[in-house]
Amino acid sequence: MLIQYIIGPAGSGKTTLIKSLVEYLQEYNQEISVVTINLDPGCRTLPYTPDIDIQDYVTVDAVMEKTGLGPNGAMIAATDLMVNYVEDLKYEINQYNDPEIILVDTPGQMELFSFRNSGPMIANALGFGSVKRGIIFTYDSTMCIHPNGFISTLLLAASVQFRFANLSQINLLTKKDLIHKEKLENILKWVDDEYELASATENLEHGMLRELTLSLGRTFREFGAISELLPISAKYGEGIEDVWGAIQRVVNDDTSPYY
Amino acid sequence: MLIQYIIGPAGSGKTTLIKSLVEYLQEYNQEISVVTINLDPGCRTLPYTPDIDIQDYVTVDAVMEKTGLGPNGAMIAATDLMVNYVEDLKYEINQYNDPEIILVDTPGQMELFSFRNSGPMIANALGFGSVKRGIIFTYDSTMCIHPNGFISTLLLAASVQFRFANLSQINLLTKKDLIHKEKLENILKWVDDEYELASATENLEHGMLRELTLSLGRTFREFGAISELLPISAKYGEGIEDVWGAIQRVVNDDTSPYY
Repeated sequence: MLIQYIIGPAGSGKTTLIKSLVEYLQEYNQEISVVTINLDPGCRTLPYTPDIDIQDYVTVDAVMEKTGLGPNGAMIAATDLMVNYVEDLKYEINQYNDPEIILVDTPGQMELFSFRNSGPMIANALGFGSVKRGIIFTYDSTMCIHPNGFISTLLLAASVQFRFANLSQINLLTKKDLIHKEKLENILKWVDDEYELASATENLEHGMLRELTLSLGRTFREFGAISELLPISAKYGEGIEDVWGAIQRVVNDDTSPYY
Repeated sequence: MLIQYIIGPAGSGKTTLIKSLVEYLQEYNQEISVVTINLDPGCRTLPYTPDIDIQDYVTVDAVMEKTGLGPNGAMIAATDLMVNYVEDLKYEINQYNDPEIILVDTPGQMELFSFRNSGPMIANALGFGSVKRGIIFTYDSTMCIHPNGFISTLLLAASVQFRFANLSQINLLTKKDLIHKEKLENILKWVDDEYELASATENLEHGMLRELTLSLGRTFREFGAISELLPISAKYGEGIEDVWGAIQRVVNDDTSPYY
């Protein structure tokens, strides 16, 4: 059993990816048993029906009503409350007779899950027995068009990697249908070559930031943290077979060069 | 005029810092004119009364009511809508006869401001004339007790630096009253010495992550990104004079070694 947590900034395409992955498996790999879990207590609609839903236990709306907290405080409180239902989630997972893949949709606001204690706690608690666990991090390509947006997302992805230090991470460049082919090629060039990336940042005012870019680009490339940035369009089902290939490598313990 | 944006993860002490800074100035630097702006459309209560409040124009509650969006979607929408009121904010600022310092409280969920387009757009739009701008990034010390939490926050801070590429950044370690003195000393050691940091991460399972830690620690120290992590307790007013000193250096163009 592999539990894959889908993590990324709000609007980066986490939910659409899950829908697309499930459809892909239903069409091409019907023998694979997949279970979906929604861990976002705040979303109102989903484009797929999750098999297991944290909203059966806790919702932001209910927390707002009960506590009188504003939406901000209620989202924090609801995310923190999810920890209380880990045993229920385990029980529900057990009803599925050891599925091969569990896809977990995480809160829209990624910091609620990644930068508070509840996310890593839940991820640890669900990792019982021989369960494998991994992260899929979604780079929003519309945010990565500009080099500083790209580096910013890269740092965010690395930051998540450190929060979930013992989980392998697959990096996806989502929504490629929304950017020009040329821009996409630029981003993929930046992944391979820190000098390309630093040159693109030359228009930034400060020389030091260019130097830092070079140094970071080199560091991350050396450690393979971005060497496998897979461009996809979940909306049009493009690149989903590559995502499935990457997931299978995690299943087979052939994890990302990050480790 | 210096506009200081206070940015950091939810619960890292942004709002308490503003309250504490204003009280410090009222007590020790009464000649300094300070204006506070709340840019969080979702918070319900604040421990200080902002001079200018985005909630006069847009609130998450109103967006929820008007659009039927859930709290998650409404927070994103409300933050994006703030851009429409930049001219109103400018007008309000102008009523204050060129104040020396403007302290800006940003949304609780930092990714709403930092990793969407609205935050950098607002920060650019408010930077008119000879206005100087800077960021204060709040490291939550309770998140930084463990080395991977510290590195994760460091990467998050660096990520914000790249989103607001032409703004200088002051880094604070907040809520030092909540951690043991020994833990605080550890964190400050990690800032100065990447080997100390990497040794602390040795208990992590994966050797590559330790190597990455060394490399990142060196990179960020070379570029001064963490060399000025100031420990404070806004709650007890400790270290606030150091924050004020750092702000004055930005005013005097003697910015952080990050640049």
